Amino acid sequence: MSLRLRAPIVLPCDAACSVLRDAVVDIDTDGRIVHCGPFADAPAFDAPVRELTGILLPGLVNTHAHSPMTVLRGMGDNLPLIRWLTEAIWPAEGKMTRQDVHDGMVLGSVEMLRAGVTTSAEMYFHGEEVAQAALDTGARVVLAPAILDGLGMDWRKMLADISAWIDADGVRFGPGERVELGYGPHSAYTLPPEALTEVGAAARERGALIQIHVAESTQEDEVQRANHGSVPALLASSGLLGGRVLAAHSVHLSDEDIALFAANRVGVAHCPGSNMKLASGIARLRDLRAADVAVGVGTDGPASNDDLDLWEDVRLAAMLSRVSTMDSTAMGAADALLLATRCGAEALHRNDIGALEPGRWADVVHVGLDDPAFAAGLDVPDTHLLANLIWAAGSRTVRDVWVAGEQVVADGETTRVDRREAQATAGKVTKRLLG
Amino acid sequence: MSLRLRAPIVLPCDAACSVLRDAVVDIDTDGRIVHCGPFADAPAFDAPVRELTGILLPGLVNTHAHSPMTVLRGMGDNLPLIRWLTEAIWPAEGKMTRQDVHDGMVLGSVEMLRAGVTTSAEMYFHGEEVAQAALDTGARVVLAPAILDGLGMDWRKMLADISAWIDADGVRFGPGERVELGYGPHSAYTLPPEALTEVGAAARERGALIQIHVAESTQEDEVQRANHGSVPALLASSGLLGGRVLAAHSVHLSDEDIALFAANRVGVAHCPGSNMKLASGIARLRDLRAADVAVGVGTDGPASNDDLDLWEDVRLAAMLSRVSTMDSTAMGAADALLLATRCGAEALHRNDIGALEPGRWADVVHVGLDDPAFAAGLDVPDTHLLANLIWAAGSRTVRDVWVAGEQVVADGETTRVDRREAQATAGKVTKRLLG
Repeated sequence: MSLRLRAPIVLPCDAACSVLRDAVVDIDTDGRIVHCGPFADAPAFDAPVRELTGILLPGLVNTHAHSPMTVLRGMGDNLPLIRWLTEAIWPAEGKMTRQDVHDGMVLGSVEMLRAGVTTSAEMYFHGEEVAQAALDTGARVVLAPAILDGLGMDWRKMLADISAWIDADGVRFGPGERVELGYGPHSAYTLPPEALTEVGAAARERGALIQIHVAESTQEDEVQRANHGSVPALLASSGLLGGRVLAAHSVHLSDEDIALFAANRVGVAHCPGSNMKLASGIARLRDLRAADVAVGVGTDGPASNDDLDLWEDVRLAAMLSRVSTMDSTAMGAADALLLATRCGAEALHRNDIGALEPGRWADVVHVGLDDPAFAAGLDVPDTHLLANLIWAAGSRTVRDVWVAGEQVVADGETTRVDRREAQATAGKVTKRLLG
Repeated sequence: MSLRLRAPIVLPCDAACSVLRDAVVDIDTDGRIVHCGPFADAPAFDAPVRELTGILLPGLVNTHAHSPMTVLRGMGDNLPLIRWLTEAIWPAEGKMTRQDVHDGMVLGSVEMLRAGVTTSAEMYFHGEEVAQAALDTGARVVLAPAILDGLGMDWRKMLADISAWIDADGVRFGPGERVELGYGPHSAYTLPPEALTEVGAAARERGALIQIHVAESTQEDEVQRANHGSVPALLASSGLLGGRVLAAHSVHLSDEDIALFAANRVGVAHCPGSNMKLASGIARLRDLRAADVAVGVGTDGPASNDDLDLWEDVRLAAMLSRVSTMDSTAMGAADALLLATRCGAEALHRNDIGALEPGRWADVVHVGLDDPAFAAGLDVPDTHLLANLIWAAGSRTVRDVWVAGEQVVADGETTRVDRREAQATAGKVTKRLLG
């Protein structure tokens, strides 16, 4: 069914971050946007009209997550990284069934949808269950089943399985193309160089996205530089770059690394919350953007940065950029909003989400105004409005969410799955894993 | 009326950050705590019992704010600091009436109470209206009417007015001693040294708290060091230290400055959100705590760090401490919780708030469990529970709040004032100031 959404403010998240007043978003029966613009100039559109009272914007794009880890949230807190992994996380993950991954992902999707995050880039094991959970909740997922080596895992088999899945179902599938399927080679330090070579070739052949952790920690960076030059240099020399690549974290980059990313159109998932909490370091957001690298924001997994609230990470990205450059104008509210939407899509090499523009999927968020952040209402200057939205409002003000034109959150609650049931189911998994 | 609160989890915020299971908080008719401990061992208490299903903890303490600035929130966003002040904030403040200050403070108090922040340390002009707003909403305020010089302001008169007010009403007054009155010399760079001397003497004479901005920005630090040695050294030599002093921000401190603060028992209000957003720098939280300086967390004013959500600033304090020291164990959830409560009270030189202990005021927060952060419920290890509370839950989970034993938030809404009315009133002020 086609649909017109009309609201006093629409933020299409075009490159200029326009603020449209009294505007519409017209959605066709397939769930794609056919028009977005001021009501007064809108062409006739034969569809029911949904009159909204707040702000419409594109669904946020979380460019790096391991959302099934909702069931591990809180485990081993405050242990040093290596003990956290070996004493808390890996033992628990070793006990996780396919169903556990599904149940964890359902709760993660519920959390993200309620926060207005319509797309998440996910790297995890049991990819089929991650995809199914997204199909169950209505969330959009850019999925990279993990490819690892050792500990009983065989990277060649994992790679072949993904290729076979893509060859069977396509890179994008599901209603509204909910699922995008790609490759998740975990990192350069957990895989041999020939794995990177073969993953690069397989992904390019299929036009599929590669998601990989890059230069997240000081240790990784130091080991890698001693052995192979930098991580980006190794990715380039092994032939992984050149297609659609998303480099998560990318904290420890030299100028040459940034230039290499720019030349190869590598997208970056900046994860400020995780990088701060795990003491990984401060990524060079401003330098990456100045070099024209597409950067989005990611929450990372909820076991390490616990709330999957992308609004908080977007604020962190802007604030951390400001304090690390000692420049209070390094990133403003408009740029922060684009980082969470349009730029996030770009980092994922997608031009069909992240903005309210004809041809893109109608992934739309309605922010309500019943909050102190919007005490002055909407009749304020554009910069003021954007500041209130980004700096003071955030996830708690999200009321309604559509993915591919389908309403998946209504008045703050998910429509396809019962939030409390999702909590209870995931909670049981956590207790079993703790036991 | 006396009251017993009983809940499955009580976090008294004692120095060890104990987690009590099935425990009670007993409150006498004056609004003070008479007992807090496990239900099984509790002495008989003749009072109605309120059975709660979530987590009880002390009300949070915001150690530095200018909350009436809710009416300026969003103005001049993304201007460099000096243009933001001269083009946006000062012209708008010049138009603010006493009533505007009251209305802005009411909205600020409403926001803070709903987030479980029961006490805020406030520096602003028109102190009477700030106090009245707190008395209207039921919030607790540690008030420092601002003392400034120049631009038509006379520090001698402002100082004399505060002394006269304290001599009339006392340092603490109002039901449940809601208001504490002290001195707010704005900063060493906006006042002559003799003002610092006289404020120090007047405050010590009355046992009153001094709140002052210290070494917030690089510029301030550089100018001050060139002229007088460091800001803390100037405060010491002018005689301002020695009594109850709270130094807000304190970003740019040398080892000697920290030692000076420790020797003079100066409390520090660490404002990580404001310091990041305004690119002021990164305060030395770990070094201050290692030197035994009492440090709390502050939001700063809502015109600069826009949402008055202390939970977010507490997370920031921990995360910024971790990344700036490159140590992921620099601050964990338990320490972060104490920073927001017990340590905040200590920074304000108060031992009657910030913990659930006999003799302290019954400023109590009830956190509800209907949230993905608590999917696994309360039957998890203590560290797990604290991690979920601090890293994943936060302000949105606060359901009920008491100040001095009086319930001021019930099921998420303020009881004394209507939140929507407060929003509408403050919104009108903003629009007039923008016009």
